[in-house]
This record gives sequence, structure tokens and C-alpha cells, in this order.
Amino acid sequence: MLQGHQSWKFTKRPVLLSTAAIVGPDEGKGPLAEDFDIVHGDITMGESTWEKSEKVMMEEAAKLAIKKAKLTKEKVNFYIGGDLMNQIISNSFAARTLAIPFLGIFGACSTSMEGLALAANLVDSGSADYVMAGTCSHNSTVEKQFRYPTEYGSQKPPTAQFTVTGAGAAIVAKQGKGPVITRATMGRVIDMGITDPFNMGAAMAPAALDTIEGHFRDFKCDPSYYDLIVTGDLARVGSEIIQALFIKHNLKIDPAQYNDCGLMMYDREKQHVQAGGSGAGCSATVTYGHLVKKIQKGELKRILVVATGALLSPLTFQQGESIPCIAHAVAIEHEGGA
Amino acid sequence: MLQGHQSWKFTKRPVLLSTAAIVGPDEGKGPLAEDFDIVHGDITMGESTWEKSEKVMMEEAAKLAIKKAKLTKEKVNFYIGGDLMNQIISNSFAARTLAIPFLGIFGACSTSMEGLALAANLVDSGSADYVMAGTCSHNSTVEKQFRYPTEYGSQKPPTAQFTVTGAGAAIVAKQGKGPVITRATMGRVIDMGITDPFNMGAAMAPAALDTIEGHFRDFKCDPSYYDLIVTGDLARVGSEIIQALFIKHNLKIDPAQYNDCGLMMYDREKQHVQAGGSGAGCSATVTYGHLVKKIQKGELKRILVVATGALLSPLTFQQGESIPCIAHAVAIEHEGGA
Repeated sequence: MLQGHQSWKFTKRPVLLSTAAIVGPDEGKGPLAEDFDIVHGDITMGESTWEKSEKVMMEEAAKLAIKKAKLTKEKVNFYIGGDLMNQIISNSFAARTLAIPFLGIFGACSTSMEGLALAANLVDSGSADYVMAGTCSHNSTVEKQFRYPTEYGSQKPPTAQFTVTGAGAAIVAKQGKGPVITRATMGRVIDMGITDPFNMGAAMAPAALDTIEGHFRDFKCDPSYYDLIVTGDLARVGSEIIQALFIKHNLKIDPAQYNDCGLMMYDREKQHVQAGGSGAGCSATVTYGHLVKKIQKGELKRILVVATGALLSPLTFQQGESIPCIAHAVAIEHEGGA
Repeated sequence: MLQGHQSWKFTKRPVLLSTAAIVGPDEGKGPLAEDFDIVHGDITMGESTWEKSEKVMMEEAAKLAIKKAKLTKEKVNFYIGGDLMNQIISNSFAARTLAIPFLGIFGACSTSMEGLALAANLVDSGSADYVMAGTCSHNSTVEKQFRYPTEYGSQKPPTAQFTVTGAGAAIVAKQGKGPVITRATMGRVIDMGITDPFNMGAAMAPAALDTIEGHFRDFKCDPSYYDLIVTGDLARVGSEIIQALFIKHNLKIDPAQYNDCGLMMYDREKQHVQAGGSGAGCSATVTYGHLVKKIQKGELKRILVVATGALLSPLTFQQGESIPCIAHAVAIEHEGGA
């Protein structure tokens, strides 16, 4: 149900019945490797094009999430998915394979939490028994589409981010055992005039702040409610900016209480990932692989995942437009509850 | 609430409080011209790029729908929008202007009813007081992105469709005066192996059939419930195919009870539009301009709008993939009700 202006409070305890996280070789060398269900050693996944590789990962994540939930795909009412590819082809084509009624969404790298929020909403309102939310990205598809083909070998500035090769899927159910989705806040589009597609973190940080402020305004609570507030993929530059903004806007979020999926994915000392990870698959695999496991173990009780997205296209950049950004937030809590 | 496997029954009578439909010069020469709110005489809308022209139309439709509903944009909880452009830039950038919490969606030309279904669902479940659904297309942006730039002047086969230049927006509210949204059925992705992007109607017809069959299965009723079943943009080729499929699948839909937005938009005798109209703006402007007015006047009591979408990208076509298609259906009824 509506809470405040832009948020939903889920009162029927929609459950995260299962999650699956599939990643590529670089992510398998990072500190979260053990939390992923499948680590591909070959970044092509045996396919003849990068786009097909990305789609294969998405299908794997979806099928594994369904299997872990002990369901068949015929039981899943709706599949809510999207990705960074033009015409969200990775998810549209995975939806063709799965034949589950499909709602395509697009929120760039915020797609993960846009999908999870809508999935929880549909289950909470009795509009579905089971909903799957999924998203993915592949380093080579995204670099090729938004910047340069990886084969070109162009150099990157230190503010650039490294697109995660990974796919995440989650099954939300009206009953069962698992972490509970309790709240969501849907973000506005915020544009601070930044035009550099090699500095997404700086562009996205104000959108994340806007959604976090909206969340606490709508729920009339403060950051102490959460053990962890984790942004999607602000990486080094954006996460430093947002922490400065927390102080400026008088949001009492302790550095130990904040993290960013783009910082968590790689070992930035040893891996060449510039400012850190990004991509729709970043927040999806870190949340569905790593964070959900910590909630299941009771190491985290309440988290707020704030997935951030830059809504630019190469064409808007070429036409001189700045980068509009958005962030969507979802609260996931240990089933033991408050 | 969930009805059957893939449908929603709206029990709280979410109301179509206002709609707005803006079109370009070609649509203004068609038989529905008088039903549109604004007909642009200049297809550039005074902008320097086609993409900016499309965005301007979307903003006009959104602002007009809000004004007609006697609201301010601050009252609208969520804006659900998408379009055919890569990264749905027309809607993302309109959402930047409007600053309403934004849920980006993508269903190609089915986006219109995907958005309206979700808007009605959110209002019906108490997740929002006011939701705006919007979509648009522009002949020159779509031709440029999916086929050839219009300036190139390439010839088209008679199976091709002419992308509608138009934007439609609707405000769905929990109370007020207007047509009532009563049902929705969300479609599966269907692919019959068609690979020709100049024959979208043939590719999309089986997806429309699948959703229509799902609708009647879920609601345990037959086509006689509706005065009119209208597909999104199958145009001449696709609408002939679907009518043959109705007979083959034993769906008793009288030819007088069926129409297609792509056939209704233009005078195909006088206008050079090949098989008829298409584009996300096609079903949006025909529904929000023409059909809703017929419902308001009582000339139609119950309609089912089945918006169809082809989920291809130029890249999947180049990689030899066939065209996955989808259709989403929404039932709109006269407020006098059944």
C-alpha cells in the first residue's frame, strides 16, 4: 500500500523465496566469489556473440531461481525483467525461452530494484502468487553499446567503472521461508548537469540521495532503522560524493552502515576496474548472491538496497544532453522480523 | 487481484480520470484527426533533432493529461512510461522534466497497455492515489533507429508499417468520473520464427492471439462480453492473420466486433502508409484520443485493448534472430458499468 508520496509498505510479508546469481570470470576473482551460484570461467559462455552470452546468463539465473524455489516455470505468474541492452533484448529473449507472462522494465542499473519492488508489490496486493524479477549485464555488450568495443582497447580514466558480467534473479512469493521484503521507494529522475559517461558515479549519487531522503520522509523513520544502506553502483567516486551529501543533508548514516555494490564486487587493489563495478548485473548479483545470504545467516537484519541507474543513451550524449539518473530502493529484512 | 494465471481483476474501480493524445501532421490528415488534443503541423515540433521532437510531444501529452485531471504534477505518485527509443529516452527525459517518481517500462508497441495495466493495478491495490501512464513514438526517430533514416528515402514493401508520430498519456485515479479500468491480462513472449522487420504485423498476430486466449481463459468468459476488441498495431497483414486465427482457434469474434489501431489511424486509400500504422504512439493515441471518447459518449460500453509489441532490436536482426513478440490487454468500460 501507498506510504507517503512515493513509497510502498508491504504488509502481507512477501518473501524472497529464492535467488540466483551467475557471474563471469572477473567477478569470480573478486572477494564475493564464493557467494555466487555459478562462476563462468569463459566470458563468452560458449556463445558466438556477446549478446547471446548475456542472454544465456540471464536464462541460467532464471532457471536456477525457479529450481531453488522448488517451482516450475508454469507456476510463476509474471517475470519482470530488463537490462541495459537496446530493447532489453537479454530479458526479452530469456522471456521467450521461459514463456512466463513478461513485463519488460528499464531503469538502467536501477532495474534490479525496480523489478524487485514491483514483484513485491504484485505479491503483496494479491496480484500474483509468484513473481520472478531478473536483470543482467555483460562487460563486453555494455562497453560495445555505450562506449567502445572492448576489442578496440581504448584507455579509460580512473573515474570510469567496470561493467559487471552477471545475472541475478529472485522469486518473490506470498508465503514460504526466506527474507521478507518490507518496503520500497520509487525514485524521481535527477540530473545535476553531468555530461561525462566515464563518470557515472558522480552523476548517479544525487539520485540515490533523493530516493534515500524520500524513503525516510515517507516512512517517518531515520537511517538507524537499517544495519546497512547499500547503493547500487556508485563505485569510488560516487560513494565518496554520496557520503559527503549524507553529511550536508544531515542524514546520520555511519560509514560502517553504508556500502556500495560497485565497491564490494572487485578487489580494486588487484583488479583493473578503475573506480569499481557497475551495470544492472552489479546490484543484482551482489544483492541476490552476497547480501541475501548474510540476511539468511542473521548477520544482517535489515538492509536498504538503493540501486542507481544512469538513463542516458549514446545518442543523447552525442546530442549534448546531460545524464538523467534515477534510484529505486527496496528494504529486505530477516524473516525473524523486527 | 490475480485472476487465473496471468490476469488482474480490478475491484476498486480505478478510473481513467483524464487522457491526452498529441499527434503529428500525417495523423492529423487521417480519419481520427478531430479526436486528438493537439495536431502538430510541423513534424519537427520546432526542435533540432527528431529525438527532441518526440520528447516534446511526450511532455505535452503528460502535462495536458495532468491539467485535464485538474491535478498538479506533485499530486501524481508515479509516472509509468516507456517508448521505442534505445534506453526509452523520450520518457526518461520527460520524467526528468516532470520530476514525478518514475517507473521505466519497455514492451515496444505494447508499452501503452503494459503501462496502463500497471497504473490500474497500483491504484486498485491502494499503492497509489494517482498514476500517469504514457508512451510515444515518432516516425523519423523510429525509422532511423530500427530501419533507415527517413532522409535516405528507401522504398518499403507493402507489408511494412508506418510509425505513428504521436504521444498519449492517461491519469488513473482511485476515484473520480470517467471510464473504469476493470481487467488486464499480461502477455507471454511468442515467436513464430518470422525474421522480416518489414512485416511486423505477421510477427505480432500470434502474440495478440495468445493474450486474448489467456484473457478469456482467466476470466472464464467469451468475446461477447466486449463491444470491441481492438489490437494495437497489426495493420492490414496482421489483422487479416489474427482474424483467420480467431476462426481456427474457435474464438467467436465477429468482424464488426474487431478492429486494429493501425488500421484506424490513417486513410490507407489516400495516405502512403503501406499496411497501416504502428509504433508505441499508435495504440496510445487511438485509445486515449478516439476510443476513450467513444466510451465517454456511451457509444462503446466495454472494450478490450490488446496492444502488440515486437521486441526485436536492429542488432538481434543482424545476428539472424527471429522476432519475439508480446501483447498486453486492458479492459476499459463505461462508468455506468455492467
